[in-house]
Amino acid sequence: MSDEFTFFYWPGILGRGEFVRLVLEGAGVQYRDIGREEGMAAVVEGAGIGGTRTANAPFAPPYLRHGDTVVFQTANICAYLGLRLDLAPETEKDRHFALGVALTVEDFVREIHDTHHPIAVSKYYEDQKPEAMLRAEDFRSNRMPTFLQYFETLIETNPSQSEWLVGEELTYCDLSLFQVVEGLRYAFPNALLGLVGDIERTTELVERVRNHERIAAYLESDRRLPFNQDGIFRHYPELDI
Amino acid sequence: MSDEFTFFYWPGILGRGEFVRLVLEGAGVQYRDIGREEGMAAVVEGAGIGGTRTANAPFAPPYLRHGDTVVFQTANICAYLGLRLDLAPETEKDRHFALGVALTVEDFVREIHDTHHPIAVSKYYEDQKPEAMLRAEDFRSNRMPTFLQYFETLIETNPSQSEWLVGEELTYCDLSLFQVVEGLRYAFPNALLGLVGDIERTTELVERVRNHERIAAYLESDRRLPFNQDGIFRHYPELDI
Repeated sequence: MSDEFTFFYWPGILGRGEFVRLVLEGAGVQYRDIGREEGMAAVVEGAGIGGTRTANAPFAPPYLRHGDTVVFQTANICAYLGLRLDLAPETEKDRHFALGVALTVEDFVREIHDTHHPIAVSKYYEDQKPEAMLRAEDFRSNRMPTFLQYFETLIETNPSQSEWLVGEELTYCDLSLFQVVEGLRYAFPNALLGLVGDIERTTELVERVRNHERIAAYLESDRRLPFNQDGIFRHYPELDI
Repeated sequence: MSDEFTFFYWPGILGRGEFVRLVLEGAGVQYRDIGREEGMAAVVEGAGIGGTRTANAPFAPPYLRHGDTVVFQTANICAYLGLRLDLAPETEKDRHFALGVALTVEDFVREIHDTHHPIAVSKYYEDQKPEAMLRAEDFRSNRMPTFLQYFETLIETNPSQSEWLVGEELTYCDLSLFQVVEGLRYAFPNALLGLVGDIERTTELVERVRNHERIAAYLESDRRLPFNQDGIFRHYPELDI
């Protein structure tokens, strides 16, 4: 079926792909998950990565094929799916704003990643550990509270008083915030504990997402992988003092 | 006039704001540039940054107000304007792809920034210089060629053979690629020189943008600032050996 959602991401990690998977699962839609079904080589080949690039090649996974449309970059995919699967805001105005919010969640994710890889993605954590210690210190003291406070304020000032990030209903932005907070619980449990009093609305939003019927079923399924030390969110105790 | 484009960014630097400004200037549209007209405080106040956040507050500049719509995150703003100002691809399919490309340009910009600030945006370059040397080395050897080769291949494999990144005409993606290559010429002239034989299509695209009638007029105007050492693109010779 040519208009089936076909999703490509590395198997074995949650990573950026999980933000997309949460939208697909939250909508309860059928989709193909090529990395898990066919393995890493199929993900590489589908993108034309590594010298064999063809027209409309994404820069990197995750990416989505839907008919002859190729969508890449995590928040772009989530927005595309959200609009089609009733997980985007109702109004045009809110939709433009929502993409800004989702891209800010992604900025946060990128900074979380860079705490363990501040110098080079091509090197091991162990080869950039002193720099990671410095970067993580700044992350815990400055960046993490700045981002979390921003999302908390969005919930607080949402004109619809829905207790979601944007608009009146659950959107892909809320699913993404859920995933980031879950990731922080795994990677930076101590730092998060120190901030939890300032982000009560966020904590409640995360629980509402967790108890969403389809998300709850997904989280209990085999399809949901545990966090691990190969993904974006890694627990190195020395980075979370 | 309530549907005028009102643009907010820090005065004094090109930064991320310049990607938005190039779309406005390339379209030849009237716009307000609040940072330059009213100064930094008006940009802060407009965003509600720093404890006074109100509904629909962007995380950070640049942001755009258009009627009662607030758009933030650079590529999101460029896509919004591109669609309204005839600087986005014609087809839906290409539009989704174009946003992925623009977001990848932004990823590249972020990594360029992090060469001089690998540890903390809140600290001076001079206080993270050893780490910057390491990060810049990886950037020059791995990341810079990877990104540039990707954009080169997009031009090469564009099904319309237009010699633009996406679709048949100039889009906001091309304007963004222009700005990045100009920035690299300022910040990493040696590294760029070493790659120039592999990115001939990109170099030609950059020249076509430079000679675009409205862009050429803009580049010669007072409105175009020179690159300087406070922005994203900074020339530290020790990072460009």
